[in-house]
Amino acid sequence: MRAGPITPSESTTIRRLPARAASTWESIAAILDEGFVCHVGFVGADGRPYVIPTAYGRVDDVLFLHGSPASRMLRTLAGGIDICVTVTLIDGFVLARSAFHHSLNYRSVVVLGRAVEEQDAAAKAAALNAFVDHVVPGRAADARAPSALEVRKTTVLRLPLREASAKVRTGPPVDEPADLGLPVWGGVVPLWLHAGRPEPDGQGTALSLTPPHYLNADGPARRAAIAHRDPI
Amino acid sequence: MRAGPITPSESTTIRRLPARAASTWESIAAILDEGFVCHVGFVGADGRPYVIPTAYGRVDDVLFLHGSPASRMLRTLAGGIDICVTVTLIDGFVLARSAFHHSLNYRSVVVLGRAVEEQDAAAKAAALNAFVDHVVPGRAADARAPSALEVRKTTVLRLPLREASAKVRTGPPVDEPADLGLPVWGGVVPLWLHAGRPEPDGQGTALSLTPPHYLNADGPARRAAIAHRDPI
Repeated sequence: MRAGPITPSESTTIRRLPARAASTWESIAAILDEGFVCHVGFVGADGRPYVIPTAYGRVDDVLFLHGSPASRMLRTLAGGIDICVTVTLIDGFVLARSAFHHSLNYRSVVVLGRAVEEQDAAAKAAALNAFVDHVVPGRAADARAPSALEVRKTTVLRLPLREASAKVRTGPPVDEPADLGLPVWGGVVPLWLHAGRPEPDGQGTALSLTPPHYLNADGPARRAAIAHRDPI
Repeated sequence: MRAGPITPSESTTIRRLPARAASTWESIAAILDEGFVCHVGFVGADGRPYVIPTAYGRVDDVLFLHGSPASRMLRTLAGGIDICVTVTLIDGFVLARSAFHHSLNYRSVVVLGRAVEEQDAAAKAAALNAFVDHVVPGRAADARAPSALEVRKTTVLRLPLREASAKVRTGPPVDEPADLGLPVWGGVVPLWLHAGRPEPDGQGTALSLTPPHYLNADGPARRAAIAHRDPI
């Protein structure tokens, strides 16, 4: 992973609460790597804004989106329009003594730019592997690789990570001093995305019923446990 | 809760994969009530789309947004422009035998419309309580209520739930029949947002160190456990 040429622009400069700005390349990359669903914003042909959730992958300083060539969103994005891609991780409820100071702990990244369609078949296949490994590290080497037809049946878009910012809130509530004497509990309820026990679909061979090592050892459960607080 | 007058519009009709459309009022309300962070999309003064994560509340067929009167986003939205509010719940990794058929289980709602500022002080105070109780049911009665100044220092926007749609993917992977003989595990890794042990901030009175009943019994931990699979 190399440092990306990210520069905060007028559009991505956080104007309020600058203490929450955390826009180093390392912090942006870490948030993008922990998340796997982004919200893509674009202006439709009708002039209205749309926000659609979708999976993504990251390779160095490129964020990849993908989907069916028939997808209305992907066809719209591939036209080279301005888009905004936002990734948000939710870390906790912040319970202050006053309703007013209640808050959430979170980490988010906003990326602005224009996506271009990846036309090269080899680069597309590599991006598709990156998608699978982004969600479940180690999985791409195990799953059947995309066929030439499947690569053609997938649109892959590249969004360079040039204009991006991160925003983070951590820590306990910030109460009014006069409220600290109230008999009201104050603190944080931590939240994290928990990966449960793998549920085999019961199809296929007996061998395929054994969860692979990357689900038990290096997979999403372990990644979530390390990143957060689950017992491993 | 009454049934909202939601009608799918041309803009919110799901054109691909109609099996994933699930746009009854009940399904939309349930998704909005389980989530608490939405992604708001709007077109900025520069003509570019922006997607910003923020908390929300729901009262009947109105979705409330709020924030500081100094917030650039809230001032932009209060101008009565078209916005899109999307809520996404992530339910699982879907691991197929082929990379191509990997997917995610999720539930999402897309709301289109225009927000108006709530000017009435009593209605604003009620909405602010709804915000707190949306995140932690029972909390609003415990926390110090907003003062008149705090109500004035909060902008509350109302977005009627008139034009909305839900999209849901559930269940196991859908593999190519020819792939079922491969020695590759197939199934779902369930995911849910887990609420951990409350962490008191150590401020205030000794009484305030005891987590309140709604965090232990009826609060987010229990709600998450019931909605998902945590042991209670």
